[in-house]
Amino acid sequence: MKLWQKEGAINKEIERFTVGKDRELDVLLAEHDITGTLAHITMLESIGLLTSEELKVLVAELRTIHSEVLAGNFEIEDGVEDVHSQVELILTQRLGEVGKKIHSGRSRNDQVLVDLKLFTRTELREVVELIVPLFEQLIKLSNQYKDVKLPGYTHYQVAMPSSFGLWFGAYAESLVDDLHSLLAAFRITNKNPLGSAAGYGSSFPLNRTMTTELLGFDDLNYNVVYAQMGRGKTERSVAQALSSVAATLSKLAQDVCLYNSQNFSFVKFPDHLTTGSSIMPHKKNPDVFELIRARCNKMMALPIEISMITTNLASGYHRDLQIIKESFLPVFENMKSCLYISKYMLENIIVNDSAINEEKYKYIFSVDVVNNMVLNGTSFRDAYKQVGLDIEAGNFEPIMDLQHSHEGSMGNLCNDKIQEMMQAVMAEFSFDKIDAALEHLLKG
Amino acid sequence: MKLWQKEGAINKEIERFTVGKDRELDVLLAEHDITGTLAHITMLESIGLLTSEELKVLVAELRTIHSEVLAGNFEIEDGVEDVHSQVELILTQRLGEVGKKIHSGRSRNDQVLVDLKLFTRTELREVVELIVPLFEQLIKLSNQYKDVKLPGYTHYQVAMPSSFGLWFGAYAESLVDDLHSLLAAFRITNKNPLGSAAGYGSSFPLNRTMTTELLGFDDLNYNVVYAQMGRGKTERSVAQALSSVAATLSKLAQDVCLYNSQNFSFVKFPDHLTTGSSIMPHKKNPDVFELIRARCNKMMALPIEISMITTNLASGYHRDLQIIKESFLPVFENMKSCLYISKYMLENIIVNDSAINEEKYKYIFSVDVVNNMVLNGTSFRDAYKQVGLDIEAGNFEPIMDLQHSHEGSMGNLCNDKIQEMMQAVMAEFSFDKIDAALEHLLKG
Amino acid sequence: MKLWQKEGAINKEIERFTVGKDRELDVLLAEHDITGTLAHITMLESIGLLTSEELKVLVAELRTIHSEVLAGNFEIEDGVEDVHSQVELILTQRLGEVGKKIHSGRSRNDQVLVDLKLFTRTELREVVELIVPLFEQLIKLSNQYKDVKLPGYTHYQVAMPSSFGLWFGAYAESLVDDLHSLLAAFRITNKNPLGSAAGYGSSFPLNRTMTTELLGFDDLNYNVVYAQMGRGKTERSVAQALSSVAATLSKLAQDVCLYNSQNFSFVKFPDHLTTGSSIMPHKKNPDVFELIRARCNKMMALPIEISMITTNLASGYHRDLQIIKESFLPVFENMKSCLYISKYMLENIIVNDSAINEEKYKYIFSVDVVNNMVLNGTSFRDAYKQVGLDIEAGNFEPIMDLQHSHEGSMGNLCNDKIQEMMQAVMAEFSFDKIDAALEHLLKG
Amino acid sequence: MKLWQKEGAINKEIERFTVGKDRELDVLLAEHDITGTLAHITMLESIGLLTSEELKVLVAELRTIHSEVLAGNFEIEDGVEDVHSQVELILTQRLGEVGKKIHSGRSRNDQVLVDLKLFTRTELREVVELIVPLFEQLIKLSNQYKDVKLPGYTHYQVAMPSSFGLWFGAYAESLVDDLHSLLAAFRITNKNPLGSAAGYGSSFPLNRTMTTELLGFDDLNYNVVYAQMGRGKTERSVAQALSSVAATLSKLAQDVCLYNSQNFSFVKFPDHLTTGSSIMPHKKNPDVFELIRARCNKMMALPIEISMITTNLASGYHRDLQIIKESFLPVFENMKSCLYISKYMLENIIVNDSAINEEKYKYIFSVDVVNNMVLNGTSFRDAYKQVGLDIEAGNFEPIMDLQHSHEGSMGNLCNDKIQEMMQAVMAEFSFDKIDAALEHLLKG
Repeated sequence: MKLWQKEGAINKEIERFTVGKDRELDVLLAEHDITGTLAHITMLESIGLLTSEELKVLVAELRTIHSEVLAGNFEIEDGVEDVHSQVELILTQRLGEVGKKIHSGRSRNDQVLVDLKLFTRTELREVVELIVPLFEQLIKLSNQYKDVKLPGYTHYQVAMPSSFGLWFGAYAESLVDDLHSLLAAFRITNKNPLGSAAGYGSSFPLNRTMTTELLGFDDLNYNVVYAQMGRGKTERSVAQALSSVAATLSKLAQDVCLYNSQNFSFVKFPDHLTTGSSIMPHKKNPDVFELIRARCNKMMALPIEISMITTNLASGYHRDLQIIKESFLPVFENMKSCLYISKYMLENIIVNDSAINEEKYKYIFSVDVVNNMVLNGTSFRDAYKQVGLDIEAGNFEPIMDLQHSHEGSMGNLCNDKIQEMMQAVMAEFSFDKIDAALEHLLKG
Repeated sequence: MKLWQKEGAINKEIERFTVGKDRELDVLLAEHDITGTLAHITMLESIGLLTSEELKVLVAELRTIHSEVLAGNFEIEDGVEDVHSQVELILTQRLGEVGKKIHSGRSRNDQVLVDLKLFTRTELREVVELIVPLFEQLIKLSNQYKDVKLPGYTHYQVAMPSSFGLWFGAYAESLVDDLHSLLAAFRITNKNPLGSAAGYGSSFPLNRTMTTELLGFDDLNYNVVYAQMGRGKTERSVAQALSSVAATLSKLAQDVCLYNSQNFSFVKFPDHLTTGSSIMPHKKNPDVFELIRARCNKMMALPIEISMITTNLASGYHRDLQIIKESFLPVFENMKSCLYISKYMLENIIVNDSAINEEKYKYIFSVDVVNNMVLNGTSFRDAYKQVGLDIEAGNFEPIMDLQHSHEGSMGNLCNDKIQEMMQAVMAEFSFDKIDAALEHLLKG
Repeated sequence: MKLWQKEGAINKEIERFTVGKDRELDVLLAEHDITGTLAHITMLESIGLLTSEELKVLVAELRTIHSEVLAGNFEIEDGVEDVHSQVELILTQRLGEVGKKIHSGRSRNDQVLVDLKLFTRTELREVVELIVPLFEQLIKLSNQYKDVKLPGYTHYQVAMPSSFGLWFGAYAESLVDDLHSLLAAFRITNKNPLGSAAGYGSSFPLNRTMTTELLGFDDLNYNVVYAQMGRGKTERSVAQALSSVAATLSKLAQDVCLYNSQNFSFVKFPDHLTTGSSIMPHKKNPDVFELIRARCNKMMALPIEISMITTNLASGYHRDLQIIKESFLPVFENMKSCLYISKYMLENIIVNDSAINEEKYKYIFSVDVVNNMVLNGTSFRDAYKQVGLDIEAGNFEPIMDLQHSHEGSMGNLCNDKIQEMMQAVMAEFSFDKIDAALEHLLKG
Repeated sequence: MKLWQKEGAINKEIERFTVGKDRELDVLLAEHDITGTLAHITMLESIGLLTSEELKVLVAELRTIHSEVLAGNFEIEDGVEDVHSQVELILTQRLGEVGKKIHSGRSRNDQVLVDLKLFTRTELREVVELIVPLFEQLIKLSNQYKDVKLPGYTHYQVAMPSSFGLWFGAYAESLVDDLHSLLAAFRITNKNPLGSAAGYGSSFPLNRTMTTELLGFDDLNYNVVYAQMGRGKTERSVAQALSSVAATLSKLAQDVCLYNSQNFSFVKFPDHLTTGSSIMPHKKNPDVFELIRARCNKMMALPIEISMITTNLASGYHRDLQIIKESFLPVFENMKSCLYISKYMLENIIVNDSAINEEKYKYIFSVDVVNNMVLNGTSFRDAYKQVGLDIEAGNFEPIMDLQHSHEGSMGNLCNDKIQEMMQAVMAEFSFDKIDAALEHLLKG
């Protein structure tokens, strides 16, 4: 049952090739397909293309199917091409001919566009809502270990005094900037393409402003040709924002994997969170962070993969766009599990609070000693020379309680300021508006 | 004269390898290096590390050098490693020992960080300010040709009626969404890393809030470890935003190159803007748009190039970051010329206002004819069947004056709404604050 | 049952995260895991680490399991971590303690290395063996339509006379060069890593030359540290070679999609191989080629995805490498289906043999007319001028039967030469040696 | 003076945009442009399109210009579009009208194609010839330090005994596999596109076999449409091969940067090859290897950049291809300097021959102790248990002189076998044939 099917048998092989992974992937779109349809038919009734009775019956049944989807009782049957056909098929089986009326004034193209927008919007929100507790965990660790020193490296060389407070806090602040990227992606996503039909609009007197409000979108993708261009572009923008988060997690994971090495021994994890060997008792492989690192690095290649698929395609729909779903739809599950697991691991991290005491870290305090002499009146030149001579003569004594006091330094982490920045960007997401709209659409 | 140079000759070959393209690239950073230094020394005086007399002398001379840079009278001499050394060298040559004092409480690391932030902020602004007139040109063309029909394609197949109004307007709206990406990049850029020293802060009592205000930044990169992490991350975020604009221009260019083909003949350009051949008189190669397309596609690979350089590097400075400058610094010139030239070409585009009349586009009106019958009371099923039969019998007559009336359709482009969206996102850029701050810093 | 499992419960969530898609992906490795084990234990017996009786029992059972795998009767059970554990588990269930002996002198690391090499070698061969018939089909079409003219384009502008013979033949020759890339990948793959243990070799007196011969490898990855480095590197090399094939198919698909457009109408396909619409009768969407194009473009991003995962990891095994399997293992199925379907579609392609006659292609013969005059004694300058004037005056008459005679031109396609090149590169693949070795190992 | 220039002024801005970096980049092609022209005109004379007298004069002058290019006395003048025009301009200035005759039967398209092939072939050879000494240096170090132990890592965890012999040797063997990729790229490059004209051949009776022999190519790109497709494809194939070498160098550099850290202290370099600080005396920044790492990682992004430019362009020339030169032409200089500098640094590397003695590496011998007990008759189970108990009780004693004897292990590096593999692949490059051909063409 393919809607575009004409007389003549479609070669089975071709069918398998063209359907690809759509049947399994489209299940992820099912709840959003129904939501989009609810808005569409409500609007159709308002312009006279459905009777109020038809609308009532259809809404009730679509809400039922929506519950079935949420309960996990929905699948795309063999021989049904995609989620849109499946929903229409169920409706028609249960309600008869009226089930087919949901498709007036709509094309597969704007239907999948709005499904993808609704899906992506929901997933982006879940990503954001997993970033927040990870951020809080990092801030908590930063505050908790603010006085535990750590050598700071440049060029992988022991360089300057740092602290666990700085280290954990840095990743918290990194997530704040990542949220700016996610906000841009969210804004690009949260506009309504429904009504663009096959990419050139419709001669029906659709009310796109109405569906925009019903679905809780911030605004419309006005121009119908642009609405169609949003396919591929939205995914690429979102993949770029996710890749920013991925870069933050990947770098954290790289630090953890190194710091967990016996050559650093700055952090470790309980045995049950590492893998080891009974005859190499100090071996605690940080597999979880290695996998976070690899999964995130992989995610960072997604934008260019999408670009490779879409580049140099002229405007207008091309079937190529279907292939983007293969990597794009599952990326959210991957990102969410990386965020969730990162937080879980950090709740169990064990910090080595005497790492700094090793002889090899002694000289990292030399710059501070010079600065201290300068602040006490010695010229920089003389202080620098004196410390150099002390080191050469083996007389150098680090002053480990030197205070760094400026904004963002070891002694003044400004975690409260970082939290304020976080709240500011979080406040720009329009989640409440969406909640209210969907509540109304799905519950009445 | 390399500041970190020790006894013993540095192998010439090694030096050439390590300096790389820094000398030529760093000239782009010169004006920003001076601006950053002006803020830094003003702050140093406020915490007692410079006398007010020293500050006065240094400020005056730095403003002079700044003018020299703007006038094109600045270069990095042979044997001088980078822009920071060159500025310090000039100062010391002109003012003596006091010239060396500008470096207290600062490291090469945060100095280049702030230079890059100031440079990128300026360049992003110039990009934004070239997008606006291109956007306006597209809106103007959209309005001007709103009634000129164009076949709309799906799968590169003639499909539905479209219009030049829709086509030009789509790219205008695309730029609005690109500005959201640029805004996120701008916000990530527009935070102050100065004071993070070598990535671990300083024991001097720096006032980072003061330099933040002096330089007109929105906020600080508080955590000093994060401030250092911003290197590479800022570039990648900005490159991603630029790649969104690039994707828009590339798609426009692809459309133009096809539509300019004799097989479409929808648009053409005056002879002096194409290349041709005297014995193939209808050959008008759209080289300019081919180069826009290629340059933009190349820009879309920049984020992954930066990711390849930075991925799996642990936190802390690595010399690797220097190599990012090679592709990152010149990308703005490339982007700006693509934007400028695109607008110039569109000012000269010639639209074929009778394209739609060819026989092969006749059937694109069939859907509209069906819809029209439905709106007049025929059932969809009957209308569809009737039109199908008419086509088969050769009796189909397109109704070319059918009206599309919904938001964003041919008959109701909503360009005013698109312009409003543009103004809304433009209003979020804090350019005025920057202007005021720099005016004060450079003019007093 | 995880082999490295220690006391204490492994958090379920963590387990799900670390196992990832291994259970489903590893099924693809099962037959190769058994083959590798057969070679390994044969060698173990030869150095006295298994008795000949133990070897006999194990070989018989492993061959049985191998048959079960080929028959589709093999799966990795819940709670079993990977394919290696599953095979060992089955052996132990059926044979008791001796089943555990297969792992002496081997590590998971070199076991999965050799599995991946054997898998990849097999898949590369299948790819090569699908390229050959596609190549032959293209040569056949080239010969068949050698006299059917086609306009040749530059800059998407109508430019010069071309032919279907040239067009089909070009893609055939492209595949020859792609085979050189595949041969390099095959050679890199076809070396034996078994015996490198965890990447640092073993103190057992293993005979790696023996396993190399038993498995039909061309040679060893000698250095054990390099053998481990082969993980990730082999995949990237192979992905690069596949991306060359993908680029060829993608370009062919792009040509087909355009040429199938009503604006070109150079080729078409039977209705059952396109999708269409009853009320837009000339719409024949080339979905199959759009999907080939998109799938191939996606494959071209695989090398950089692998690079992102592996870059800046120091030598030695990292768990990150596991993630490469997610995209790498399925790429072959994707490539093979694209090759198979491309050939199938080309068997059904319908060529428009009068395309060249349209008025808009008239001037493409002007260069040939000039050249003809030159060959007949007119100076180039005069000939060029004369033709230019004729065109201006509307008197230009194309001479459509002009002959191109040089090597590789319309009149002299040299398809036999291209076939010779194909045979030459095919002869460098050592498939026969592999067949003989595996036959011996699996059948005795 | 642009050859395609028509009446009417070309906007200056447009000209700057379209010429781009061609003038500076094309200088790299000058010697190859002349070589290609020498072959072309020799062939033209043979088919009667030049007199033998004209040929003689042109050959003499072209050889003179070739010498000038090699001596560095060649530049592309302002107002001259590219290298082809410049050579023709010089010829015409010196010889008059006959200078213009070199262009018969040739187009800009096949001229730049052959220039790029000749350039790339030459550069690939230089890359190969720099790989060989680096390979030999690695083999030399491997042999020299074959008995110096090193901890082997997995998961960045101390794991198993390794050696400097293994470590250096691994990178040598890696280069052997990289040469297979380079060989494939060389073969794809080393075919003659000359005679394909604008991508559709010529009606002149060209003798392409003759130019193929004159230029020392292995074979022809027969099909003229395919010859044109080689643009972009050749560059991508070559960039992929270079990225294999880059991956090897990058990984070596990553190892060196870590091993040079105070936390490993396995290797160091003389002071003049590192950068440091007088008050942090143990700080020896390995800037050179950081830059090798970054430059190589950047090179690994080149294939996808090229793919982004070429993907989804239909067959036939597009101006887009010009942009590939910007990144492709300079990549060789980058690669060659990385190879040269890597070798230089490795000639100066200082190995820590007592690294293994630190307490934290004690347990890496536990697996060997177990294996030793097994070889002496204890069952694996009992041996494993005993060693586990010894470790727990603090009684474990590593046996550091255990011998690894199998192929490719610490005690049996097989460097001679690796050298044989190297010689085998080197023997497949057809450099001698090229030398002979060019000698004849340029010297007569």
